[in-house]
Amino acid sequence: MSKKPLNIGLVGYGFMGRTHTNGYKRVADFFPELGITPVLKAVCGRSEEKTKAFAEQWGYESYETDWEKLIARDDIDAIDICTPNDTHAPISIAAAKAGKMILCEKPISRTTAEGEEMVAAVEQAGVPNTVWYNYRRLPAVTLAKQIIDSGKLGKIYHYRANFLQDWTISADLPQGGAALWRLDAAAAGSGVTGDLLAHCIDTAIWLNGGITDVSAMTETFIKERMHQLTGKVEKVGIDDACAFMCHFANGSLGLFESTRYARGHKALYTFEINGADASLRWDLHDLNRLEMYDHSDEGPQRGWKSIHVTDGEHPYMSHWWVPGLIIGYEHSFVHQVADFLKALEEGKPCEPTFKSALETAKVCDAVLESGKTRQWKNV
Amino acid sequence: MSKKPLNIGLVGYGFMGRTHTNGYKRVADFFPELGITPVLKAVCGRSEEKTKAFAEQWGYESYETDWEKLIARDDIDAIDICTPNDTHAPISIAAAKAGKMILCEKPISRTTAEGEEMVAAVEQAGVPNTVWYNYRRLPAVTLAKQIIDSGKLGKIYHYRANFLQDWTISADLPQGGAALWRLDAAAAGSGVTGDLLAHCIDTAIWLNGGITDVSAMTETFIKERMHQLTGKVEKVGIDDACAFMCHFANGSLGLFESTRYARGHKALYTFEINGADASLRWDLHDLNRLEMYDHSDEGPQRGWKSIHVTDGEHPYMSHWWVPGLIIGYEHSFVHQVADFLKALEEGKPCEPTFKSALETAKVCDAVLESGKTRQWKNV
Amino acid sequence: MSKKPLNIGLVGYGFMGRTHTNGYKRVADFFPELGITPVLKAVCGRSEEKTKAFAEQWGYESYETDWEKLIARDDIDAIDICTPNDTHAPISIAAAKAGKMILCEKPISRTTAEGEEMVAAVEQAGVPNTVWYNYRRLPAVTLAKQIIDSGKLGKIYHYRANFLQDWTISADLPQGGAALWRLDAAAAGSGVTGDLLAHCIDTAIWLNGGITDVSAMTETFIKERMHQLTGKVEKVGIDDACAFMCHFANGSLGLFESTRYARGHKALYTFEINGADASLRWDLHDLNRLEMYDHSDEGPQRGWKSIHVTDGEHPYMSHWWVPGLIIGYEHSFVHQVADFLKALEEGKPCEPTFKSALETAKVCDAVLESGKTRQWKNV
Amino acid sequence: MSKKPLNIGLVGYGFMGRTHTNGYKRVADFFPELGITPVLKAVCGRSEEKTKAFAEQWGYESYETDWEKLIARDDIDAIDICTPNDTHAPISIAAAKAGKMILCEKPISRTTAEGEEMVAAVEQAGVPNTVWYNYRRLPAVTLAKQIIDSGKLGKIYHYRANFLQDWTISADLPQGGAALWRLDAAAAGSGVTGDLLAHCIDTAIWLNGGITDVSAMTETFIKERMHQLTGKVEKVGIDDACAFMCHFANGSLGLFESTRYARGHKALYTFEINGADASLRWDLHDLNRLEMYDHSDEGPQRGWKSIHVTDGEHPYMSHWWVPGLIIGYEHSFVHQVADFLKALEEGKPCEPTFKSALETAKVCDAVLESGKTRQWKNV
Repeated sequence: MSKKPLNIGLVGYGFMGRTHTNGYKRVADFFPELGITPVLKAVCGRSEEKTKAFAEQWGYESYETDWEKLIARDDIDAIDICTPNDTHAPISIAAAKAGKMILCEKPISRTTAEGEEMVAAVEQAGVPNTVWYNYRRLPAVTLAKQIIDSGKLGKIYHYRANFLQDWTISADLPQGGAALWRLDAAAAGSGVTGDLLAHCIDTAIWLNGGITDVSAMTETFIKERMHQLTGKVEKVGIDDACAFMCHFANGSLGLFESTRYARGHKALYTFEINGADASLRWDLHDLNRLEMYDHSDEGPQRGWKSIHVTDGEHPYMSHWWVPGLIIGYEHSFVHQVADFLKALEEGKPCEPTFKSALETAKVCDAVLESGKTRQWKNV
Repeated sequence: MSKKPLNIGLVGYGFMGRTHTNGYKRVADFFPELGITPVLKAVCGRSEEKTKAFAEQWGYESYETDWEKLIARDDIDAIDICTPNDTHAPISIAAAKAGKMILCEKPISRTTAEGEEMVAAVEQAGVPNTVWYNYRRLPAVTLAKQIIDSGKLGKIYHYRANFLQDWTISADLPQGGAALWRLDAAAAGSGVTGDLLAHCIDTAIWLNGGITDVSAMTETFIKERMHQLTGKVEKVGIDDACAFMCHFANGSLGLFESTRYARGHKALYTFEINGADASLRWDLHDLNRLEMYDHSDEGPQRGWKSIHVTDGEHPYMSHWWVPGLIIGYEHSFVHQVADFLKALEEGKPCEPTFKSALETAKVCDAVLESGKTRQWKNV
Repeated sequence: MSKKPLNIGLVGYGFMGRTHTNGYKRVADFFPELGITPVLKAVCGRSEEKTKAFAEQWGYESYETDWEKLIARDDIDAIDICTPNDTHAPISIAAAKAGKMILCEKPISRTTAEGEEMVAAVEQAGVPNTVWYNYRRLPAVTLAKQIIDSGKLGKIYHYRANFLQDWTISADLPQGGAALWRLDAAAAGSGVTGDLLAHCIDTAIWLNGGITDVSAMTETFIKERMHQLTGKVEKVGIDDACAFMCHFANGSLGLFESTRYARGHKALYTFEINGADASLRWDLHDLNRLEMYDHSDEGPQRGWKSIHVTDGEHPYMSHWWVPGLIIGYEHSFVHQVADFLKALEEGKPCEPTFKSALETAKVCDAVLESGKTRQWKNV
Repeated sequence: MSKKPLNIGLVGYGFMGRTHTNGYKRVADFFPELGITPVLKAVCGRSEEKTKAFAEQWGYESYETDWEKLIARDDIDAIDICTPNDTHAPISIAAAKAGKMILCEKPISRTTAEGEEMVAAVEQAGVPNTVWYNYRRLPAVTLAKQIIDSGKLGKIYHYRANFLQDWTISADLPQGGAALWRLDAAAAGSGVTGDLLAHCIDTAIWLNGGITDVSAMTETFIKERMHQLTGKVEKVGIDDACAFMCHFANGSLGLFESTRYARGHKALYTFEINGADASLRWDLHDLNRLEMYDHSDEGPQRGWKSIHVTDGEHPYMSHWWVPGLIIGYEHSFVHQVADFLKALEEGKPCEPTFKSALETAKVCDAVLESGKTRQWKNV
């Protein structure tokens, strides 16, 4: 009814453009209590044809082919950045200078240095900002956060996470351009580290606190691939696989691994945290479940519980269906939109802000540096 | 762009009203190839306040408090019935007479007799019609259908299914009115048989063909509950639990069970089918997975495969995200809308039609009759 | 050291002859506290060559080819019957008359009538007797019994069990003789009912009390098979598959199914019991695990626990290794020997006695009768 | 019958003394084709009382309290070493000098240096020798080896393993003496590295070939514990947790982790190997299962298979029961005895020999050194 509109200007119409747009379109239906509602004002992309088609399909009121023009428009309140990593810094900084709110796809940037400029820009401008580390908003992950924060786990000894995929095993897969910019170091900054481990690290810091030092191993299995933009076979600059060990500030040990060469795994993002009194683990493939081992259970009845996180009392779930009926991947983005809007109403930051997300960038940089130098590296 | 509108008139704003509406609102985003697009023209409910609020929240252009008026409106193309089972027949028959298309929530009716009148009405009127047995449209279930239809399973020996819940164990839960009409025999017709087994039976017939005879056991564990409409403690007329054995026309044996007293199960709808050459099984709690045992695998390497049905080559999934990223319960309704619209474009019926759904009603009636008489009953 | 010997006379050297013998040979190593120790005195079989070879391999002191002679020997304390079902009654009755203890493989007999004569014989003779329903002695199953007996589950609503196999799908498999007597109605009495459902029923009665009435469906998928003893194609007299519904004396509902035509299942014996306050389930394929859902857990942390029943505080497990290290199928027989010897020492019966096992025979008879008549049958 | 005896002299009557003895006692029953049979000639331990009791319980013909006397006995053919790690070298070397065969519990030694002396001793003496890396002999692990050796996996990219326990979380647990020598650096050499990672490394080398360099992180969470031998609180010298990254000679990446502080895990030994064409994974808690993903399966039907390794055509399983019926942890030792005896008959070495096991010791040493220096270390 009397909801306050928030005019969105979306940059990028790829995979993430779709997930974010879906988030904006569904939030009012499922979170009716919010006083602010997103309006799909404009989408921006370099190809006029594709941008126009996206606008029509998804219901954007208008489109632009130059992001500077989008930022310059008075009728845009918030810039949402869904373009490759190399564009995050220039667009964010320009948007901040123009006084726009910014919702930036993860990772915040290709490097810590870029990220620091972005943080400086949003802080100077005083604009609301957030980075789309959407997995925090899955109900099972948020439930893990609540249980950990309650102190139930006791002293933490171990945290481990991995993100395993298998989609780049074929040497015939080219790099660069369109959906394959993730294989192009210039556009992406790094390979699995910025793409996948960044998710693992963000969740880890959120759940278990800061990481102090890392030792990493990186590998590029396929050394050369045809580049779609140049049409030539070029050296592959990204990391195909990366594993690292680390210490957390709370004294626990961390172990992380990511690859795009683990045959059989499509998007196996899992984490596990072991405390003296209880442990938790989670798997993106079955994202509605949280597993928990509670040592305070009666001795002979102890075991790993599979919690089906679909009850009304579970985080976010009262907004959806009835117990037992699952939600999917895309809902994490709806939740992030809802949380962003709620934070706006309350005048609070929406985590992770650019500043918080910079912590993940620092860890990623240390990991990549350690992989190169084969030395432990402080974060 | 030049999509043809289909004006929807929704009757009922409860749980199913939400799932259907979400289906209408999302179909154009994810199935852009469709030439027809649903328009949320009007919603109808008895409480003006609640109906109006629903219309505002979900974006219906108007509302009605009398379904006869809704049917009478010229600007309504299709009537979607989401009200309790006792209303399916009168609304459907009136809608058919008014020449409206009808999308009716399952089960088609309280009884076969009611259902037969409904079938007669839509056939006489020649209006497109369908019943929302949404689970057929889950990608893993559709994949099961494709594999079975390919002949991969060989001669079928067994089919078994159950739908186990635990939400009515408390004797303090009242019956009747609002969300609890499912406990009221007058409104629902039956208990778990029409509510839950109807789903199991619809899937079973779709996958394994017709059922010829049944032998059932029914039970009402809690004999009296306070009735919300009368405020009095009244006899409970529904079946709290129902199990039945049956024969399929293809010679295979069936075993079905449903209850709302299986502590620990929220919505455990599972089915399994065993053929001479291969077997399949599925579980609603993990609806993106289909399990398959293929006896043609090399001997020592045989085992039950867990197929994560999230690839682009899986049914419906090219419309969503990328491999490994799951969808949820609600997507089955989006798929059903898409299939209904596609069938409209092609001038074909959208299964299950009223006529097809009547088969499930007949089995349900035979099951309830067998439960009462303790005799085998032909369908 | 000063252990009292118990001289065993084993009849039958097949699959069960091996499992029982292994039980006798291992019990002293793992249950050193027992004051009685089994001695492998003699094995008896019809083929002298095979019997002698078995005696040598397994360490029996002597062998016989006529079970009447075995029973007549003064140096035999206990007769262990591992031969096909049609021999259980004559051997048991003769052994009882000779004052021997009897350990009889399940099922007790082909029919209730045979079983009643056997019970009369052992009771008249006053000899210790037991039937090898070995699955009771698996630690996870015994743990289930302990939890149920503690009252933790509250009022019981449902019990379900199945035993699914796939080894007789080929029509080329003959019946009768050697290992295939299980397909021969004359030797076995029935098919899956006496072979597999008998296990399910014994466990069910033990865990959930008596069964009052049943309604069954039986099927023989392959009507004729070559008979190994006659060399002719003969009608198959056994049930290939059997499902039944029942009521327990405590008011709960039961559902049972067994088949040898469920492709992909080798020995899928599972049971589940649902109470108002908690539920349990178990699967023979993973026999060291017991799953438990405890509704008294904190709301958002409720889930099905997978209890790895390998701790010292779990039933029988202090006799084996260390937590996390599993035991196998054969250990159930070691446990049954240990329990039999302990009962002997204490002068108590070892459950299930012939009399207790007769309850299962009665249910089996009622099931087979109901399958034939298509009527509910009281037990 | 005419089996050739192999007289065993066992040193140590603890946990491993029991598993090995059980292996010797069962092998003839289940592997009747072997021409050599172990004879329990003598057991040796420092406590006369306990050693005598063990001999009586398990059926050793005699006992000794001095291992040098045991080695000196003419009636002993093979020395089996089940005592703490610090004793492996002196006993092995003396036994080799005396011309005895040696079966040594893993790890071969506390250090590579000790191990090299042992290898030199057995090679100089020319005596048959083996190290009890028993997990190789679990049917599912051997099946993995067969599948890998068939080339089915294609080029290998990743190998990962962990061994997680939780039994030393309590700070009240003392170190040293009896069952707790594993916490005492002087007796054990190291903590989880020699105890648990040694298993992971042995399997890894067997399945995936040699390891070339490692980078490790070690931690001792509880710095001081009461020492049972001195009665004083002393510094803990072992590693409570250890993770390491490595490269295999075939170019694949390895990631390993072990700890005794992962609440909820009793003995979670898992490994996974990813090849371009297929992947395998395994878990000790469910040791009868091997999971396999085969990319050559038809596209939409691809998934992780759970192979229940209990068929007669699976490694070792024709010696046991029938399909679906599992074996346990202890069976790996029976298999190792059988393989040792078979190798003796054939005059071949029984893998892993001392020399092969030295490879694992070298990796362990490199891991521990890397953990100390925080540098990559070549093996």
